[in-house]
Amino acid sequence: MPQYKLYYFNLRGWAEPARQLFKLAHVEFEDVRIENGTPEWEDLKPKTPFGQLPFLSVDGFEIPQSAAILRYLGKKFGFAGKTPEEEAWVDAIVDQFKDFVSPLRQIIMAQRGGNSDEIQRVQKEVFEPARDGFIKILNGILEKSKSGFLVGDGVTWADLVIADIVTTMEKLSVFDVELGENQKLIAHREKVNSIPEIKEHNEKRPDAVV
Amino acid sequence: MPQYKLYYFNLRGWAEPARQLFKLAHVEFEDVRIENGTPEWEDLKPKTPFGQLPFLSVDGFEIPQSAAILRYLGKKFGFAGKTPEEEAWVDAIVDQFKDFVSPLRQIIMAQRGGNSDEIQRVQKEVFEPARDGFIKILNGILEKSKSGFLVGDGVTWADLVIADIVTTMEKLSVFDVELGENQKLIAHREKVNSIPEIKEHNEKRPDAVV
Repeated sequence: MPQYKLYYFNLRGWAEPARQLFKLAHVEFEDVRIENGTPEWEDLKPKTPFGQLPFLSVDGFEIPQSAAILRYLGKKFGFAGKTPEEEAWVDAIVDQFKDFVSPLRQIIMAQRGGNSDEIQRVQKEVFEPARDGFIKILNGILEKSKSGFLVGDGVTWADLVIADIVTTMEKLSVFDVELGENQKLIAHREKVNSIPEIKEHNEKRPDAVV
Repeated sequence: MPQYKLYYFNLRGWAEPARQLFKLAHVEFEDVRIENGTPEWEDLKPKTPFGQLPFLSVDGFEIPQSAAILRYLGKKFGFAGKTPEEEAWVDAIVDQFKDFVSPLRQIIMAQRGGNSDEIQRVQKEVFEPARDGFIKILNGILEKSKSGFLVGDGVTWADLVIADIVTTMEKLSVFDVELGENQKLIAHREKVNSIPEIKEHNEKRPDAVV
């Protein structure tokens, strides 16, 4: 087995589903957590493949970009879909999520800015339309699912990404866990987070909003 | 061979590299072009997998999202990288491009809006920093490339995506083809567009800014 090192900030963020994949697959990895704004990060930054985190080192071979890392590990460990068509749907769901990242980032930045008018504006004009469109797509997929997972009959890395983002949105107070139209995603997250390896990992991990 | 139908607007946009992949692989496909804002699109929209274009039909099995479509075809046709590690780098480059889509979309929308102060503001504050960061990453990759392609020793779907986006930026007047630091990308585009199948396709295709 190669030596895996996953480099990321001390957050869930874009690396958490990769950490969960290692646990699911019972594969050892070094969970390297770097504090943002430290000399350690300033020193490491120019040495990373794309000047950013996360990146994965596989016996020293470095792979940047979270979805690329997840797809690579998902394929290695058998959580990427069972056919080329299932793999394509896993990819498509995560691509749809990536289209949602910009509005998500905007509401995070607005909340950090702390100006309540601006938070309100970004939430109504930018974030909520994007979130509602994204949830509608996910609900459509879950409605047709026989397994309760997003693609095929077992858990894939797309399930990990979506379950994690529901938690992030809940922690940011932009996802109402009581709302009727959110119940499919709540049930999906429950299904993912009930997998024993994920449950154990989530209970032990450091708490983080994002 | 399955029957492929690629549904997209009458643009290059997110579907052009998929059209090029079919040509590269000498595989027949139906290039379904739908005019935006027509009753035809309004009628089709709710029947598409994610309410948007492009999507690919493979004997009636539908795959949404441009990168998922490209990766699916790239793997089928042998243009997705030769090892899991090459595949991961192809993915990572396109993920990096996807991070650049939001600033790119913002400058396109500003240009369409036609307010020159706003164009100037978006260009300086949003678009140019993102573009320059993206070009720096691509230059770093091309500097290390022995083949002149982005990954490994042959063309992959990442090359098609990047060559096409250089053309789009040029047509939007936000990529200076004379600038020294852009020459690696110009040479890369030339290399891609000189592949006989791509050359023939590009000469015959309808002209479009994006």
